[in-house]
Amino acid sequence: MASHNNESVKGKRAVVIGGGVIGSSWAALFLANGMQVTVSDPDPDVETKVKAVLKDATPSLTELGYNAPDAANLSFEADNSKASSSAYVIQECGPEREDFKKDLWAKIEGAAPKDALLLSSSSGITATKQSTSMHDPGRLVIGHPVNPPYLIPLVEVVPGEKTTKAQTEAAMTFYKSVGKTPVLVHKELQGFVANRLQSALFKECVYLVVQGVMTVADLDQVVTESLGIRWATGGPFLSFHLSGGPGGFAAFLQHLAPGVESNWKNAGDATFDDKTKKLLLDQVARAYGHTPYDQLSGTRDTKEVAVIGAVSEA
Amino acid sequence: MASHNNESVKGKRAVVIGGGVIGSSWAALFLANGMQVTVSDPDPDVETKVKAVLKDATPSLTELGYNAPDAANLSFEADNSKASSSAYVIQECGPEREDFKKDLWAKIEGAAPKDALLLSSSSGITATKQSTSMHDPGRLVIGHPVNPPYLIPLVEVVPGEKTTKAQTEAAMTFYKSVGKTPVLVHKELQGFVANRLQSALFKECVYLVVQGVMTVADLDQVVTESLGIRWATGGPFLSFHLSGGPGGFAAFLQHLAPGVESNWKNAGDATFDDKTKKLLLDQVARAYGHTPYDQLSGTRDTKEVAVIGAVSEA
Repeated sequence: MASHNNESVKGKRAVVIGGGVIGSSWAALFLANGMQVTVSDPDPDVETKVKAVLKDATPSLTELGYNAPDAANLSFEADNSKASSSAYVIQECGPEREDFKKDLWAKIEGAAPKDALLLSSSSGITATKQSTSMHDPGRLVIGHPVNPPYLIPLVEVVPGEKTTKAQTEAAMTFYKSVGKTPVLVHKELQGFVANRLQSALFKECVYLVVQGVMTVADLDQVVTESLGIRWATGGPFLSFHLSGGPGGFAAFLQHLAPGVESNWKNAGDATFDDKTKKLLLDQVARAYGHTPYDQLSGTRDTKEVAVIGAVSEA
Repeated sequence: MASHNNESVKGKRAVVIGGGVIGSSWAALFLANGMQVTVSDPDPDVETKVKAVLKDATPSLTELGYNAPDAANLSFEADNSKASSSAYVIQECGPEREDFKKDLWAKIEGAAPKDALLLSSSSGITATKQSTSMHDPGRLVIGHPVNPPYLIPLVEVVPGEKTTKAQTEAAMTFYKSVGKTPVLVHKELQGFVANRLQSALFKECVYLVVQGVMTVADLDQVVTESLGIRWATGGPFLSFHLSGGPGGFAAFLQHLAPGVESNWKNAGDATFDDKTKKLLLDQVARAYGHTPYDQLSGTRDTKEVAVIGAVSEA
């Protein structure tokens, strides 16, 4: 199924800073593209943890058309600078703390080769903020993945104020070459794009459950049985363009947009206060608590891979 | 792929009031379940229009495991009362005007058999409002489909204040028997549930495009390449339950919910003013305007059917 050409990265070294869930997932994807991978993490158990994720990721990766990640190409080096010395690309997945990231880049920009790609997985600490102690802040770009990164195609590429156009383009090219779908985010807004959209939908979900309009289980079913199917195959704008019928988006704006605007005016409010938390926890437990995490996440991966395959082949 | 049992409705008569896009789609689905179907619409061209939709719907229906709709079981009767006289179920798909629907039900509740199911496809005029001139308002239930109704599984079942529990349950059973996924909506909120969720997400989409964060085409790609895949396989609550890792929804509430709440505080505002309309129209035209409507909607149907199949088989 994979139609990307990874010849340009094969055999090159990806350094993954931080061997948590996101870092391990990137490592799996890079290995599956034939890269050499070094994971840099002070955790003494990092090797065990990364290898467990490799094992979990392998069925999805092979089903998506990649090679199985080869652990023979995987190494570990706790010292960030040493690890970075022969990097083609550095994918940072450390703690979400501004001071950590600022110090890291200031330290390793000199240790890494001059043309190494410097990428951060951060979901919220912008390249502008992370790069303030760097000698050359033009080198740093955000490459924010969606969980699980070995499976979901999107990577949000978000340049900082000083990031060069060349670095941004190099990041886009790199992510394409490992089979991802990079999308360029032109402004460093909080939450970037996918998380903002997800939060907007979730606010209304929480409101509707709190109001007793629907249970958590039923609300999830509304989404999987309608909007999810729609949005897996066409985004919100294409969907409304088609809702307009042969008149397209102009007809949508004339006939359906007033209803949408009216829903905006009547949208619900929500907050994670203690009462709301308890209600949601109880209902989530009732809906999903009887199934172990590994089983639920395994099923999710299997279904997501099937959806990606179905859309690309249809 | 269809695993429903439609034996209980086979050969029975569905009367579809209104032969527009929604009515024609219901007709296609009911025929594909072996029902007799009468479409009631004063439009002299209604037969041509309904048969065109039958033709479009047939590949999706057969791919989903139904029989091809058999036009030999399809008839037309412009007079609502006559059409309703032998109805097992009446699915109303007339104009979205309260007076039209009020008058219709007052007129045909007597013409239809006493135990006929009375269902309205309305997306916004509640059963409470539609039934005010009925002798027995307990009979009417909303069965709101998602476009295209022959394909998307969800039906929002929304009882009015006076709808009996027995009628609501009968509606749920009927929709299941024709292969749909009915979900019960406990309160008659404007927009019910799916349209409220869709509107909430779209507001942030419009905001981000107006702000220049991303083009319409790129924003659609963000959704199809991440959230759409996720939500086709698991709803928002299950997704966040899994985002919490082995700690589940409790871990989500502790670690990730503050970020979501912060996105709520920073969510964008939007309005369909002339400037916004022009911007969106231009970008939608650039993204999709070069492909004819029939081709785009055909591709959507093919992909949506593939996604439904992939999820059910994975």
